[in-house]
Amino acid sequence: MKIGFLGLGHMGGPMAANLLKAGHALVVFDLAPQAVAAAVQSGARAVSGVQALAGAGVELIVTMLPASAHVRAVYLGEAGLLAAVPRGVLLADCSTIDPHTAREVAAAAAAQGNPMVDAPVSGGTGGAEAGTLTFMVGGSEADFDAVRPVLAQMGRNIVHCGGPGNGQVAKVANNMLLGISMIGAAEAMALGVSLGMDAKVLAGVINTSSGRCWSTDVYNPWPGVLDTAPAARGYTGGFGADLMLKDLGLAVEAARLARQPVALGALAQQVYQSFSLQGHGALDFSAVVKLYQRAA
Amino acid sequence: MKIGFLGLGHMGGPMAANLLKAGHALVVFDLAPQAVAAAVQSGARAVSGVQALAGAGVELIVTMLPASAHVRAVYLGEAGLLAAVPRGVLLADCSTIDPHTAREVAAAAAAQGNPMVDAPVSGGTGGAEAGTLTFMVGGSEADFDAVRPVLAQMGRNIVHCGGPGNGQVAKVANNMLLGISMIGAAEAMALGVSLGMDAKVLAGVINTSSGRCWSTDVYNPWPGVLDTAPAARGYTGGFGADLMLKDLGLAVEAARLARQPVALGALAQQVYQSFSLQGHGALDFSAVVKLYQRAA
Amino acid sequence: MKIGFLGLGHMGGPMAANLLKAGHALVVFDLAPQAVAAAVQSGARAVSGVQALAGAGVELIVTMLPASAHVRAVYLGEAGLLAAVPRGVLLADCSTIDPHTAREVAAAAAAQGNPMVDAPVSGGTGGAEAGTLTFMVGGSEADFDAVRPVLAQMGRNIVHCGGPGNGQVAKVANNMLLGISMIGAAEAMALGVSLGMDAKVLAGVINTSSGRCWSTDVYNPWPGVLDTAPAARGYTGGFGADLMLKDLGLAVEAARLARQPVALGALAQQVYQSFSLQGHGALDFSAVVKLYQRAA
Amino acid sequence: MKIGFLGLGHMGGPMAANLLKAGHALVVFDLAPQAVAAAVQSGARAVSGVQALAGAGVELIVTMLPASAHVRAVYLGEAGLLAAVPRGVLLADCSTIDPHTAREVAAAAAAQGNPMVDAPVSGGTGGAEAGTLTFMVGGSEADFDAVRPVLAQMGRNIVHCGGPGNGQVAKVANNMLLGISMIGAAEAMALGVSLGMDAKVLAGVINTSSGRCWSTDVYNPWPGVLDTAPAARGYTGGFGADLMLKDLGLAVEAARLARQPVALGALAQQVYQSFSLQGHGALDFSAVVKLYQRAA
Repeated sequence: MKIGFLGLGHMGGPMAANLLKAGHALVVFDLAPQAVAAAVQSGARAVSGVQALAGAGVELIVTMLPASAHVRAVYLGEAGLLAAVPRGVLLADCSTIDPHTAREVAAAAAAQGNPMVDAPVSGGTGGAEAGTLTFMVGGSEADFDAVRPVLAQMGRNIVHCGGPGNGQVAKVANNMLLGISMIGAAEAMALGVSLGMDAKVLAGVINTSSGRCWSTDVYNPWPGVLDTAPAARGYTGGFGADLMLKDLGLAVEAARLARQPVALGALAQQVYQSFSLQGHGALDFSAVVKLYQRAA
Repeated sequence: MKIGFLGLGHMGGPMAANLLKAGHALVVFDLAPQAVAAAVQSGARAVSGVQALAGAGVELIVTMLPASAHVRAVYLGEAGLLAAVPRGVLLADCSTIDPHTAREVAAAAAAQGNPMVDAPVSGGTGGAEAGTLTFMVGGSEADFDAVRPVLAQMGRNIVHCGGPGNGQVAKVANNMLLGISMIGAAEAMALGVSLGMDAKVLAGVINTSSGRCWSTDVYNPWPGVLDTAPAARGYTGGFGADLMLKDLGLAVEAARLARQPVALGALAQQVYQSFSLQGHGALDFSAVVKLYQRAA
Repeated sequence: MKIGFLGLGHMGGPMAANLLKAGHALVVFDLAPQAVAAAVQSGARAVSGVQALAGAGVELIVTMLPASAHVRAVYLGEAGLLAAVPRGVLLADCSTIDPHTAREVAAAAAAQGNPMVDAPVSGGTGGAEAGTLTFMVGGSEADFDAVRPVLAQMGRNIVHCGGPGNGQVAKVANNMLLGISMIGAAEAMALGVSLGMDAKVLAGVINTSSGRCWSTDVYNPWPGVLDTAPAARGYTGGFGADLMLKDLGLAVEAARLARQPVALGALAQQVYQSFSLQGHGALDFSAVVKLYQRAA
Repeated sequence: MKIGFLGLGHMGGPMAANLLKAGHALVVFDLAPQAVAAAVQSGARAVSGVQALAGAGVELIVTMLPASAHVRAVYLGEAGLLAAVPRGVLLADCSTIDPHTAREVAAAAAAQGNPMVDAPVSGGTGGAEAGTLTFMVGGSEADFDAVRPVLAQMGRNIVHCGGPGNGQVAKVANNMLLGISMIGAAEAMALGVSLGMDAKVLAGVINTSSGRCWSTDVYNPWPGVLDTAPAARGYTGGFGADLMLKDLGLAVEAARLARQPVALGALAQQVYQSFSLQGHGALDFSAVVKLYQRAA
């Protein structure tokens, strides 16, 4: 299949590489020349811009961009994708953005005859490289079926979340809960340890009880509990605190537009904002436990 | 074994009944005559008060009381247990109270030659009746080994959490995280549904992703997601919101004494306090999702 | 002076009327015909649209619009003000919007030779009618001096807050603190009364002590404390809870873009969101005290 | 008048000195010998303990103790004041403690024929030395009238807040609002400055608008705004952050017992707890603004 791929960053780069490995012909573009060069070395063909990519005769275009503003510009801009792409070409935006923008862009695409899905991912750069990402897909049943085989070459878990925008909705809802759980796990672990419990014993109790969550049994933030968690390697790698902050911002803003209260979600955003202000935004998001530990 | 049992309420009653079924000789006391009568009917022998129970020649005394003040009065009061119990009798307090009081009482008991464990439970009245409670036990290795077989006749999961008070620490830490997770689950479900997602699909995504927690996969608060959760039966049964409010109060107060911040824990307490103020304290604690739903 | 006035709603209508009373020639536009008719009856000349107003030979254009999206559309849209207004015409936007949009629009205006100030108001519809509004003005010294006499015909307190956008900054910062103080006042009054104090005595203590604030001494939310506050008239009139919710949203979003934590500001937004969800958004914002009172 | 004074710490010491200056005969006790020595040097007579003080023939006993536990021990302990004081002696506790303990102690005193008032103060060590404290007094009209002249020799503002315990209620309600306002002021100032406003200009706008509060117009936390505030002298002196933390703890615990939600109060407590954990508890409480400033 001939596929256009736009956005070759930390996530997009390895995702494109997996499509090349799967045998697809890739036409790529990114503003960063070295990212393009890497893709070309893996077998992609580079073009000079968004509209060149739109006109390159591809059947599917995948985009992976940093934020809503970029998606808006790339799709809806005067020299953007929609202005140049032939009708019928399928569009899949894997960026994590707010659901309202996702729906606006999908509606504009649909209006001119381009089926579009939103397909944000979870799994981080590790998942992108290993091809084990989870894709949360919003779009029609038919469009989901059309894009699924290609997504399955970049990920392991391809979930249909409903109509356009619902991929983004699922992602912001999940990640808001994740941010809340992680801070909750950090508070519970810090409370128990400060009251004299052994961290591993406490984690064991929680993980077999009703406090159990992914943030305690897979990704426990307390050092010494899990050998495989970022806490065991100085909170490097993993999912950056500033990315969690971004996702919490998307969730709280989506809640505002839906006139829906999210008290703990909003406080979680502020906790991560404080953590970032103190200079820790580049650490794994489980490092937020540092806010609860007495300085040595 | 000859066992004293003090406190025959919603939890203590069925717990005592399970000890009787297991063949123990029980000496019981409670301020409520009908609770005593029920135990007697099941084979227990009633005595007239705390000190009569202490002097009844039992090897072990189990207490199940509503709150710290009761534990303090029953154990440390002038006409209390410690003033009357023969040295060497083992004491097991199954009440959920603050860790500081638990440690103070255990220290007073130990000082006069009575080994004591704190052994708060989780599992609710259903677990008490079925004998499937979890016991979180704080005390010495030897005392834990001594009490374990008896606790195992009232529960399924008997966990040693470390020294005296650690049973309470484990319980407040776990339940604080549970309260946070439940509100987080309610906010995430409400956000997703208000943005147009199907609740079951959303729960499916979360439960296979990083937002997964006991409050989403076992006890999801959104109606229609799980047939077995209290949400499927009008939030009756289960673990009452006012009990969650009590446990969050214990956790936040323990954190205050430990000079440990728990921002989300404190906010969770306030959310449940608001929920209770609005008249919903008797519902299952997952009903807190009502605070996030538009009135019909 | 010949002035264009765009946006004749609850605030803009009486503001325009005051300019007419002061003797200015007004050219007006609004999408609502009855709003235009009222202004015409007071002596204004109506035009058919934004660009007609821009081309009507006015020296100053005042805009009063509901939100950022409207300001962006009216000023920057293809058929918008900037595309049609002659160079040199002074622009004053009195809408309450986010500082980033205010600065973007002001920069676009300045780039084409139109000086622009942002001049959001406080004082509500009562202040608009009485001509006693406070204007918080962002713009150059020269532009402030130019627009000040006109603003002084609609308000009593005209404050220069610094360069473009700073009027909006001052307003969101002040109103965020106001929202926090009001909820704080509600919590303090409810706490004291629930613990047995007389509300008037408590307010008296606070107002001569360090808890004193505008929300306790001018606008106390507890019924029976101040005869002149909305609490004395069923929380009608005043500053609507949904408007406070909007301003808190602007503040928290501006903080997000500035990467600045505002934990209490964010929680205040969520409290007002819950209040609005429960159907009280049209009440005065001091009615938030209802969230802290036991249902009768 | 012959007065007993118990508790000669940072507050009690200068308060006792002011009573001596006013010509009273003082009988004093404190566990710290140097505190007693200082009072003796100023003219007080020292006794060897609580009960010696109770039996020294005084007409009034004033106590100034650190926390509820001390008040409980000193008044209700086996070798405490109530067990030794002759009937009719008036008791005035100036400690800041929880309202429930204050009421319990006052009831015990009244039951044995000793009128008692609670009279917590505000104004800090500066006010204690200058004799300009505010006393918030709970007790009967008659007891208030009896104690007022003596309190007026240690303070400037003597407020009758209602029956027993209401002095404490007024203090915790006021100080909870103060803690909320101070953090709100810090957030508003930090937000405005981070968005480009001059701090003095912003404070000026707020102080003439609806965000005005004691924390902005008397005690503004931002450096450079007020020459007289602790912010101008490195946050030394004033009211310590750990004392604010203590008072917020009293307020939130009193709210819990009254089953009253205080969401912002609880979050304010946690913010101060985090500030204290980071090692800043000894600074003036307005230094909490540091949590909102980017590290230099």
